[in-house]
Amino acid sequence: MFEFNITAQNHRARTGTFSTPHGTLQTPVFAPVGTQATVKALTPAQVTELGATLVLSNTYHLYLRPGDDLVAELGGLHRFMRWPNPMLTDSGGFQVFSLSQTRKVDEDGVTFRSHIDGSEHRFTPEKSIRIQENLGADIIMAFDECADPNDHAYIKDAMDRTHRWAERCLKTKRRADQALFGIVQGGIEPDLRAASAEFIASLDTPGIAIGGLSVGETKDEMHAMLDVVTPLLPENKPRYLMGVGTPEDIINGVARGIDIFDCVLPTRLARHQAAFSSEGRLNMMNATFARDERPIDETCDCYACRNFTRAYIRHLIAAKELLAGTLLSIHNLRALIRLAEEIRGYIAEGTYERQVPVLLEKWSNNAKRTNIKTNCAPLSK
Amino acid sequence: MFEFNITAQNHRARTGTFSTPHGTLQTPVFAPVGTQATVKALTPAQVTELGATLVLSNTYHLYLRPGDDLVAELGGLHRFMRWPNPMLTDSGGFQVFSLSQTRKVDEDGVTFRSHIDGSEHRFTPEKSIRIQENLGADIIMAFDECADPNDHAYIKDAMDRTHRWAERCLKTKRRADQALFGIVQGGIEPDLRAASAEFIASLDTPGIAIGGLSVGETKDEMHAMLDVVTPLLPENKPRYLMGVGTPEDIINGVARGIDIFDCVLPTRLARHQAAFSSEGRLNMMNATFARDERPIDETCDCYACRNFTRAYIRHLIAAKELLAGTLLSIHNLRALIRLAEEIRGYIAEGTYERQVPVLLEKWSNNAKRTNIKTNCAPLSK
Repeated sequence: MFEFNITAQNHRARTGTFSTPHGTLQTPVFAPVGTQATVKALTPAQVTELGATLVLSNTYHLYLRPGDDLVAELGGLHRFMRWPNPMLTDSGGFQVFSLSQTRKVDEDGVTFRSHIDGSEHRFTPEKSIRIQENLGADIIMAFDECADPNDHAYIKDAMDRTHRWAERCLKTKRRADQALFGIVQGGIEPDLRAASAEFIASLDTPGIAIGGLSVGETKDEMHAMLDVVTPLLPENKPRYLMGVGTPEDIINGVARGIDIFDCVLPTRLARHQAAFSSEGRLNMMNATFARDERPIDETCDCYACRNFTRAYIRHLIAAKELLAGTLLSIHNLRALIRLAEEIRGYIAEGTYERQVPVLLEKWSNNAKRTNIKTNCAPLSK
Repeated sequence: MFEFNITAQNHRARTGTFSTPHGTLQTPVFAPVGTQATVKALTPAQVTELGATLVLSNTYHLYLRPGDDLVAELGGLHRFMRWPNPMLTDSGGFQVFSLSQTRKVDEDGVTFRSHIDGSEHRFTPEKSIRIQENLGADIIMAFDECADPNDHAYIKDAMDRTHRWAERCLKTKRRADQALFGIVQGGIEPDLRAASAEFIASLDTPGIAIGGLSVGETKDEMHAMLDVVTPLLPENKPRYLMGVGTPEDIINGVARGIDIFDCVLPTRLARHQAAFSSEGRLNMMNATFARDERPIDETCDCYACRNFTRAYIRHLIAAKELLAGTLLSIHNLRALIRLAEEIRGYIAEGTYERQVPVLLEKWSNNAKRTNIKTNCAPLSK
């Protein structure tokens, strides 16, 4: 269980297989986010049909509602949400820091207030693991603190605490059918990132996550941090870049040795009427689409593109019909999953390095800045 | 084309086949409503999977948005919304009277204001047919006036006008691949209903609709009107009871010789967290379902019931996740379509009359009065 085998390598980019109790993942892989035990607006059948293999769910949200005890009582998260394939939960740490209005960190853990009803709760490393054991995902995360990357003074403290918490998580963990990943932190300080990578690598977890990126830093800063971190990680373990990303981030991340990605962006964009496409990001409400008989993206093989015109999707948006969000979610998720499939093909045939500029040229217009949050903090509802 | 063959008969109840350019319907049939060219919250693939064969769409809504010219330019409604099976459009008459704030009827037609933006529009029998020809449904309706059943003085005038409009519709109609149904009106006056049934029957349309019921009258009044009307209609033509109904209405309607039903109730109930079930109508937000591992209805074979617990659906509702509405829509539509399938089986084996009380006993709790509108005026959005 949790065996990671590299099947091809192009400089730092690699393809691999990662076996879990619910199936073997082909990496690099993009995971749709099902914050509240559902990938928003989609049935699990639709998520499967669009080619997703790994789904992420959020510990913070499920702890608050419906409660991890209830999920455990009903047979765990796989059964509760009917996702029979590999699943990953985060530790709840990121959401405590991004969603709750008030929180107080101490050495032992974090006290915070629910974003739903203001009630007070406390997470510790032990509590996060207990919740994640109740949920029962295949891949679980150490409890970490994602500090503001611009607060230089604080960031080392938070990193050191994250390291001590990772050790406590490992000590607490009981279930053999779950892989606990440590999380590298350290903001945008190369020396801290290096120290964190070395420390987390030393814990010998079956995979390693990189947290605290795509939280406001520039693309160059993110790439610089990956250039520091991944060379210090063991080759034979999967690396998960948390909460990333855009098509461009995936292309660049794989080139720097990342194997697993997740992001709410595809489904969030869908709720804002935006679509990834090989022509660049499209605002599907655009009046020019009113009589456009083409699919969202002529190169796409998703259910939405195989069946519906831009004109129809624009009509659904104008008429405030829920199907618009469903079709755009299917399309946007399929775009990233198809990109990961394409990337795996290039790595397998040894051409990925040559393809990176071509892929970036094709997809970079999709990463343009908009008023839609492109980092991956889950929406509070 | 548009051949109706009765395949079995139990007193007034009958099964039949009705051939259309997009396939042959098995009757009695229940049609989901796709007001704005989409059955709310569902993909056409899901609508097909739950067993729907006929879908209704609303002329008034599609005329206003996206416009019937646009739909025609894009190849018609079947292609626009990707529904390859039989489709029906209403005339727009009912919506003009139920949705628009102001309207003025004259002999020639109706002038009304859009419920969307207040703009002024005019429907005449000719205009309604032209719009429905642009949309291109297999079954289309004569333009009618659905008068308040309690306004005795007005109702005969409206009925006579509806008859004159039906003749104009027939004269206007051009497309041979569309079946135009005349509509029987007459409020809850037995003599008017009889006169209307005889007049509409004399027009020799390939099917006959019964309008102006389930608009506020009692169940007994509705049944009394059906008891007057259907015996006066030709046996060899399908009868369509517009905007009806509940499970109870379908059982009673079939017993009185009705072949086609449509109603927004299943999808509207879904948006109000309510589910049809053999235990009676369920409010899925009920706290007793929080840990309930059973499906919505243990006798149901829909995707929602085959896969998800009441506890999960309640969680989705509490978390305001769109998937709740999708799963409940699938379930509620399947419940009525399954009921129609079951009824066809009883008629085929000659036991329907005996089964009516059993079916009513099983389903009557689903028709209980709530604050949810149970008549079938489409929501304005």
